[in-house]
Amino acid sequence: MIDTPQFMPVGTNATVKALDPDDLVEVGASIVLANTYHLYLRPGHERIERLGGLHRFMGWDMPILTDSGGYQVVSLADAREVDDDGATFRSHIDGATHRLTPELAIGVQEALGPDIAVAFDHPVFPSSPRAEVEAAMERTHRWAERSLAAHTRPDQALFGIIQGGVDPEFRERSTRFIASMPFDGICIGGLAGDETPVERATALDVVVPILDGDPRPRYLMGLGSPADILDAVRLGVDLFDSVLPARVARNGQLWVPGGKLNLRNSAFQDDPRPVQEGCPCRLCRSFSRAYLAHLFRAKELLAFRLATCHNLTFTLDFMGRIRAALRAGTFPESLASLREYAGRQTAGAADVEPA
Amino acid sequence: MIDTPQFMPVGTNATVKALDPDDLVEVGASIVLANTYHLYLRPGHERIERLGGLHRFMGWDMPILTDSGGYQVVSLADAREVDDDGATFRSHIDGATHRLTPELAIGVQEALGPDIAVAFDHPVFPSSPRAEVEAAMERTHRWAERSLAAHTRPDQALFGIIQGGVDPEFRERSTRFIASMPFDGICIGGLAGDETPVERATALDVVVPILDGDPRPRYLMGLGSPADILDAVRLGVDLFDSVLPARVARNGQLWVPGGKLNLRNSAFQDDPRPVQEGCPCRLCRSFSRAYLAHLFRAKELLAFRLATCHNLTFTLDFMGRIRAALRAGTFPESLASLREYAGRQTAGAADVEPA
Repeated sequence: MIDTPQFMPVGTNATVKALDPDDLVEVGASIVLANTYHLYLRPGHERIERLGGLHRFMGWDMPILTDSGGYQVVSLADAREVDDDGATFRSHIDGATHRLTPELAIGVQEALGPDIAVAFDHPVFPSSPRAEVEAAMERTHRWAERSLAAHTRPDQALFGIIQGGVDPEFRERSTRFIASMPFDGICIGGLAGDETPVERATALDVVVPILDGDPRPRYLMGLGSPADILDAVRLGVDLFDSVLPARVARNGQLWVPGGKLNLRNSAFQDDPRPVQEGCPCRLCRSFSRAYLAHLFRAKELLAFRLATCHNLTFTLDFMGRIRAALRAGTFPESLASLREYAGRQTAGAADVEPA
Repeated sequence: MIDTPQFMPVGTNATVKALDPDDLVEVGASIVLANTYHLYLRPGHERIERLGGLHRFMGWDMPILTDSGGYQVVSLADAREVDDDGATFRSHIDGATHRLTPELAIGVQEALGPDIAVAFDHPVFPSSPRAEVEAAMERTHRWAERSLAAHTRPDQALFGIIQGGVDPEFRERSTRFIASMPFDGICIGGLAGDETPVERATALDVVVPILDGDPRPRYLMGLGSPADILDAVRLGVDLFDSVLPARVARNGQLWVPGGKLNLRNSAFQDDPRPVQEGCPCRLCRSFSRAYLAHLFRAKELLAFRLATCHNLTFTLDFMGRIRAALRAGTFPESLASLREYAGRQTAGAADVEPA
């Protein structure tokens, strides 16, 4: 079982970028996400199935969740056309035309063999026109029914996805619809996009009360900054995933209590301290800020691995702090200090300068 | 002490590309080489000294050898002009003008603090005109004297460099000159370039007999293919370094007994076997050829680390096989099987196709 609230590092191509499975264990990952869309296109779900499934392929025997592919079709693929039956699109890799339907998305995930599969959905940006948001939501509901009907692996959990943008009426309708179905978990889709924090909170304030007393995990797809995660946990969310901590790490942004360090700043070239004093990660155990700053300047591959190890350690440790406060029953009074610890780990927020 | 014959992985920028120190231990490295030229330019030897020296900077407490910088000035720097006093050149990083002399090259290495420093030299391509080869050799001899005179750290070994191209007369003169000086080890420079194997063997057949009975290690700079290393060991060489195993690994060329696999070949996409059955490396322990082929096609960072771990494990294990045969007194009769094991691990050699 997975301790929640929990964060899932993202292994888009059956690898969390720059890390191997031992690194993932070391940073504290207990479940990773892999992308159905990417693996369907390359190397192909049938190939992975022939090779013994995704766990064996990527050398990871702990839980894996694959997303539905819907979000990637909408955000990555070219020339996409979504109709009531499915989505036709051109691969972002080689331009070849493909078509995903709820049935195929489930078939792909059954072949990949993750512990948790997700129903095919049609996400839209929260800021899309109201009629579009409603139509995509209704389509997502039909596809949820078809995904459930298509799913045959009893050893694999299946999560459904709530859509409905930031409109409270749609969110309520979608939550009631998806919650009424025999899914093993409830994904909250279509957020972590271009909505404001208030819009996100408003949507969650609609969703979560409807799920009150429902033991199934609630998974807000795509949220990655510790401050945002903390807010969402407060509003009742259990599961998260995002490329954010790893992506910004590869750009030299290292997360520390209260903020972040941009290792490309020249001040760090002479800083003998670890990125975060006391952090148990591979970076902080052995290396100085100066060394990491050097690796980034020299474009050395090791920079990406060490920085990613740190940001994921920070994020997963932060989830542990949240869980500890919840278990101890001290979450409400810990919120202020947890919020301070999280900082605002988003691009553009003020750096913590080296003291 | 370092078991010889030994191979030194190259950590140009104070990191063996894609590996961390734990990986280096795992692949069996007992000494690494770092480049004086690169570290002098970036991040700067004085900075590394302030940060506690190279061992601490790169998190590696086992032996380090730094080369002299001479080879990089000649092969990498722009607008280089070498005179009797030193070499003026423009940095390949930012175009800034620098000047290295024997005294500065030693000063840089004393600041970096490796276990073994190397005298500043003036290498030329083996195919250079005879007069050029001779002039560069004479200059290297003067610089050897100046390097020795400049060297003040009693805790740091200093190696001298033999030059002289592939001309037996020059090689003999250079060997006698360098061997007569109180260096702690003897580098054989100016080979592993564009000379033929026969030219290299001819040069070594001049150098080694002159060093007969001399207990100091003989280090042939820049040789990296197992087959070439085996030939050089047979001719009496103890130490080697090269970027070759790591560089070709990053291009998808994996070394196996008898040959190499090009992981970019489509056949490997469906190959469930490890790259090398029984190999203890991080790649072969956990992953299939198919997974590595996928990582290379998806341009995933993990490919570089896993492939490098394998090729360095292969190379260092091969050195162990050579040492074992030497210790057992069976090296002569083992030569044929060692040569077969080494294959011809050079770019362009025929692939071992997946059976």
